[in-house]
Amino acid sequence: MEPPVITLLTDYGLADEYVGVCHGVILRICPAARLIDISHAVPHHDVQRGAVLLMRSLLFMPVGVHLAVVDPGVGSERRAVALQTADGRILVGPDNGLLWPVARLCGGIELAYDVSESPARLEHVSMTFHGRDIFAPVAAQIACGEPLDSLGVGIDPAQLTTLDMPEPRLEDGELVVRVVGVDEFGNIEAAADARELIRIGAAVGDSVAIECNGGPSTRVRVARTFADVRAGEALLHEDSAGWIALAVNRGSAARRFGIELGDILRIKPVVSE
Amino acid sequence: MEPPVITLLTDYGLADEYVGVCHGVILRICPAARLIDISHAVPHHDVQRGAVLLMRSLLFMPVGVHLAVVDPGVGSERRAVALQTADGRILVGPDNGLLWPVARLCGGIELAYDVSESPARLEHVSMTFHGRDIFAPVAAQIACGEPLDSLGVGIDPAQLTTLDMPEPRLEDGELVVRVVGVDEFGNIEAAADARELIRIGAAVGDSVAIECNGGPSTRVRVARTFADVRAGEALLHEDSAGWIALAVNRGSAARRFGIELGDILRIKPVVSE
Amino acid sequence: MEPPVITLLTDYGLADEYVGVCHGVILRICPAARLIDISHAVPHHDVQRGAVLLMRSLLFMPVGVHLAVVDPGVGSERRAVALQTADGRILVGPDNGLLWPVARLCGGIELAYDVSESPARLEHVSMTFHGRDIFAPVAAQIACGEPLDSLGVGIDPAQLTTLDMPEPRLEDGELVVRVVGVDEFGNIEAAADARELIRIGAAVGDSVAIECNGGPSTRVRVARTFADVRAGEALLHEDSAGWIALAVNRGSAARRFGIELGDILRIKPVVSE
Repeated sequence: MEPPVITLLTDYGLADEYVGVCHGVILRICPAARLIDISHAVPHHDVQRGAVLLMRSLLFMPVGVHLAVVDPGVGSERRAVALQTADGRILVGPDNGLLWPVARLCGGIELAYDVSESPARLEHVSMTFHGRDIFAPVAAQIACGEPLDSLGVGIDPAQLTTLDMPEPRLEDGELVVRVVGVDEFGNIEAAADARELIRIGAAVGDSVAIECNGGPSTRVRVARTFADVRAGEALLHEDSAGWIALAVNRGSAARRFGIELGDILRIKPVVSE
Repeated sequence: MEPPVITLLTDYGLADEYVGVCHGVILRICPAARLIDISHAVPHHDVQRGAVLLMRSLLFMPVGVHLAVVDPGVGSERRAVALQTADGRILVGPDNGLLWPVARLCGGIELAYDVSESPARLEHVSMTFHGRDIFAPVAAQIACGEPLDSLGVGIDPAQLTTLDMPEPRLEDGELVVRVVGVDEFGNIEAAADARELIRIGAAVGDSVAIECNGGPSTRVRVARTFADVRAGEALLHEDSAGWIALAVNRGSAARRFGIELGDILRIKPVVSE
Repeated sequence: MEPPVITLLTDYGLADEYVGVCHGVILRICPAARLIDISHAVPHHDVQRGAVLLMRSLLFMPVGVHLAVVDPGVGSERRAVALQTADGRILVGPDNGLLWPVARLCGGIELAYDVSESPARLEHVSMTFHGRDIFAPVAAQIACGEPLDSLGVGIDPAQLTTLDMPEPRLEDGELVVRVVGVDEFGNIEAAADARELIRIGAAVGDSVAIECNGGPSTRVRVARTFADVRAGEALLHEDSAGWIALAVNRGSAARRFGIELGDILRIKPVVSE
């Protein structure tokens, strides 16, 4: 029989004891669990970035229990929830929208439970570390086979806090997209399916003009991969999640163009002379 | 049967091969071991901070073998030790005080062994990487059931190097505490049980005045959790380890107040007008 | 039976979802695999540094499948390969020299396969994330017992891209070495076996003069370990990989001497007065 899988995503960072403590709490309850750390470097309290990382990763994970904690409201009235998705995954985390976008990718939410007062909680629940005291033990109990309805109170999925991802839009012949990721390489991830480029008639081999936050416009080639352009040259491409991305071959697009999380990019076709 | 657990805490960082190599050495000797990384980002050579992270995490870990290496004296005459605690844990690391405070939390040391010349050591022992050459293989052998007395020479626990944590003290009606942690969020951890606040009559809802290193005094609310104050506002609270902590809701107290590891905080009650 | 081991080394960093996704892909295919992260902090696109980290770590790992991805040419014509070494390991990664130096340490390459078009690939192969789409699933299939010749096309090992490590040389009585590592402590790793110091007659206890990139010469003691010199003092020593290293006891040699990856050090004996 395959061991149960628990994935973890938080904004705890790896410098302190927080992630290790969550692992410890889980393995005390469910020693057989396999743990996969998706990322613990979500910018602190950035629920949207956490949601984006889940969207980009979760379908590549074994079906299991998926713990996610980006939780600026810890200790307040926000609920702790466990959600069963149509594809059989269980998402565990705060009810602040973090789990919402990826739940839709998983086919939607079939069952939702409020686990704020779960009997699985640690004996002493702190006011500031629910990852350790609520989310980890609940996830571990689920992974070890405890039925959801014994761990929380069923609630209507329609009551959950939602989170809308920024949508690409067409404006004056330009595709307007929001930056929802800047990875360690300095690649810029836009919240837009790469197929949206068709709306402005841009295909691989074409050039486009990109304007960021009202700054000067830059001409960039649409390419398939980094090596399609010279080292140091920029490219617009479909990234590994199928999203529109701006990169620099062997360089950092973030540094080159001074782009940050949350910026707006306006992309328009360049008529070849 | 449950797999044996080995936890790891070091100041090696994750950029180099050091932590991976320790994992590799352990799994060659004890392939069934479950490894939990508590943290590898202890500031280099900071034995006290390593000891603090162990104090904040170890009781949440499964009972097992607990490897800790913050070891500025590597290759010198300092001993390598394995300690059995009253609650059944085995602590493995350098005899420089790192393991001392957490051993007391585990009920004290029942048996101590000098493993500097352990037969479990790797064939070639380097002068600078005892994590790989001594501590990891000793921990792995213990995890796989090798009895302690075959791995080292029994010593009197009273001979071990001790490490005293800074104690909170009352001075002119002020509670004086030392900063022993600044986490990734910029939260400030003081070496004082939160119940010490009673000594200055401060309770949740009150305000206190905090002075750092003789600088100007700041008025701060005593609260239960971040969300009890407005975003950007500071709070003094009981953190997840039960210690006194200074934080800023959705911000960094370290940056706001310029506080660093080792600083002294003076906390006094504010008489409400 | 022991679980199969897969080690991972990449330049992906730990901030994004990339490493977690590779773990997920592997565990979907081979749920029993034990994963060991050697490092994911290879400087982006630095194939030589990746090769060095493999050389310093791989022989300490259980024999298994060893995945390594530092891959600036992803999506181009460079091949994806799986290599069987004389000591029974399987190395998986891009054919850009990354795997070459460590393969020699493993006794050389006995069999080589081009897995660029492997049936093990994920259904949709992106242009920019072959770690997820090719290397991880190929490694997982191998770990779960799939024979190499069903996963790729046999090629002549002599056709593989090689990578030569910089060799130490003797010039005007000086030992000239290249810096191939600067670790998190600021220790400087030179591409030279510590026994090379014999060529300039330098032994433990002697002093040497070190000149970096044509700058001023610094006098440094040859020592066995950090604690052999005073805190803040520099030492030249044999590091844990048996290489020549420059360090500062409880300090950073990189910062003290302004040394970076790729720098050239000239080491000459100092005649004792």
